[in-house]
Amino acid sequence: MPDNTRYAVIMAGGAGTRLWPLSRKSRPKQLVRILGDKSLLDEAVERLSGSVGPEYLYIITNRQYVEQMVAAYPQIPPENIIGEPQGRDTANAIGLAAAVIHQRDPEAVMGVFTADHIITPAETFRRVLDSAFAYVAGSPNSLITFGIPPTWPHTGMGYIQRGEKLGEGVFRVKQFKEKPDETTAAQYLADGDYYWNGGMFVWRAATILEKLQQLLPDSAAGLDAISKAWNTDSRIETLDRIFPTLPKISIDYAVMEKVALEGKVIVVELPCRWLDVGSWPALAEVLDPDEAGNRATAKKTHLLDARNNILISEDPDHLLVAIGVNDLIVVHSPDATLVCPNDQAEKIKSLVGEIQQIHDGKHV
Amino acid sequence: MPDNTRYAVIMAGGAGTRLWPLSRKSRPKQLVRILGDKSLLDEAVERLSGSVGPEYLYIITNRQYVEQMVAAYPQIPPENIIGEPQGRDTANAIGLAAAVIHQRDPEAVMGVFTADHIITPAETFRRVLDSAFAYVAGSPNSLITFGIPPTWPHTGMGYIQRGEKLGEGVFRVKQFKEKPDETTAAQYLADGDYYWNGGMFVWRAATILEKLQQLLPDSAAGLDAISKAWNTDSRIETLDRIFPTLPKISIDYAVMEKVALEGKVIVVELPCRWLDVGSWPALAEVLDPDEAGNRATAKKTHLLDARNNILISEDPDHLLVAIGVNDLIVVHSPDATLVCPNDQAEKIKSLVGEIQQIHDGKHV
Repeated sequence: MPDNTRYAVIMAGGAGTRLWPLSRKSRPKQLVRILGDKSLLDEAVERLSGSVGPEYLYIITNRQYVEQMVAAYPQIPPENIIGEPQGRDTANAIGLAAAVIHQRDPEAVMGVFTADHIITPAETFRRVLDSAFAYVAGSPNSLITFGIPPTWPHTGMGYIQRGEKLGEGVFRVKQFKEKPDETTAAQYLADGDYYWNGGMFVWRAATILEKLQQLLPDSAAGLDAISKAWNTDSRIETLDRIFPTLPKISIDYAVMEKVALEGKVIVVELPCRWLDVGSWPALAEVLDPDEAGNRATAKKTHLLDARNNILISEDPDHLLVAIGVNDLIVVHSPDATLVCPNDQAEKIKSLVGEIQQIHDGKHV
Repeated sequence: MPDNTRYAVIMAGGAGTRLWPLSRKSRPKQLVRILGDKSLLDEAVERLSGSVGPEYLYIITNRQYVEQMVAAYPQIPPENIIGEPQGRDTANAIGLAAAVIHQRDPEAVMGVFTADHIITPAETFRRVLDSAFAYVAGSPNSLITFGIPPTWPHTGMGYIQRGEKLGEGVFRVKQFKEKPDETTAAQYLADGDYYWNGGMFVWRAATILEKLQQLLPDSAAGLDAISKAWNTDSRIETLDRIFPTLPKISIDYAVMEKVALEGKVIVVELPCRWLDVGSWPALAEVLDPDEAGNRATAKKTHLLDARNNILISEDPDHLLVAIGVNDLIVVHSPDATLVCPNDQAEKIKSLVGEIQQIHDGKHV
């Protein structure tokens, strides 16, 4: 199986209100230069670039972001950036991408990736990805998922219980597990047979479409109709008419959990540092602290008697000054400034809803 | 003595680093719209407008601010806005203004005012000012100063001890007093014969020039030379050559304290709320708090579990959001943001010096 049948799909549909005021309705967190110079989507595209050629790279996102993404990635053909008229969860996002790719290349092997995470080192990611593609080349009907060895008893993650060892770092999946409570998460960690479910996959487009047909026939029929119209003048009309009617369901729930129970899902171990940067405190985890524990994406900061603060700005010329404050998040954006203690960051999300109402949709 | 001999001089020379990041080298605190819509200088000009016509209103400031002030007050003749080549303290600022005004009108009566304070109610201020002008009309050699009844034992103010009562709210000055320690300030307050020295005066231009000639002859000679060149082509050349050589000294120390000991200074009681707004906590005193004690000049704020904060922005479209913070100062400016606890605001001044050095003169 030659390299040119490797495709990659990045799912980049989230809004990311917890990263307000940098993430906005008009500019999702994936496009925010959250790391100072780069966005999470920049990172995802770069991370894949060693394994998949840009002409085989797809992004599926909300339609309102398509234009910005087309502009941001001139190396990716514009038609590879697929805009959903509305979000119908991962089963349909993946199904749509699979249908489009399958129509282009019935033998395509596709990886599915998220843009919400920092994954390091990139070399390890690419090595494991290459081995997953290779596995599917040898075993074309496989559904492969990636398992990140857990480093702490995370209750915000789904888990994958591994079963029979099939090769170095390759196992049959015994069972997918919902987000656990703390006790259960600690047991998983101690047990050693559990991975974090990173929500990333490799399979033939034909295989996943076949599984959707079996397990989610309503979606499969709709996606088939859409793909038939894809290279015609009625692409948008058909997409807009059918896609919003598809049942909203995740690929895990619709397909992976069921197929795993039949012993037909493979987990490849991804021994990477894997961080969801969906909130300011989570982002801080990937930033290097100064001597006083302050972390910044802002290029210009000036701190005095200030410890363990998070200082965020995309503007390289804006100066953030903090005197005598600790454990505080300070975020500058051109039209809004946020200050919030690190341990109250979960309030940001609901606040954005309030601001939306009070300020007539401005600032959000 | 007709009204058209009333002149007013606003001294507006200060830099105001304690109001960083709104006050800058290029834009002193007097010009900052510190109250949201208005600057302190706007307030000072408006406060005087009922008593003195705009053609008799002068501003003396650092030369670099002249252009901004000319633009800000089109009603004031541009030649009335006097730029000092460098600050030589109040004796020379007042002396220069007096010399210029005296040359225009040898019978001029001039008031001298600061632009650093909020003085309310304006009606009371104007009523007292009118009575001071009237007093000088009746007693042309008087030096009049204004005494603000103290409301707390302020150690950052000079005081005026009143003596013989000359009329309703009019007293001979017994003695000027330096800034006191806390015990002394408390005694002054309890005693009831002490006023805060507001640094504002009314006198004939001829009278103060005569006193300068007696008590500060070096300055007087220099100012005389400058005034002789004032209406010639060599105004700037002469000012630049002579003014920087004048001895740096305050009008209180050079003139008022000495003349008071001779029993020749009059204090007029100014029963106003009188607030120096030279720092963010001081500014907060003049802002109305919300139910949780938060005070703002920012037009758009959104607060959640936040108490006793000070939220500052000149930009009416910028949204300041504070979650779960108390007693914090948050200041937004286009190129710099400051967060600092209320009780550490005195650190801002030294910080500005550091920023000046580190950031190559930017942001200050």
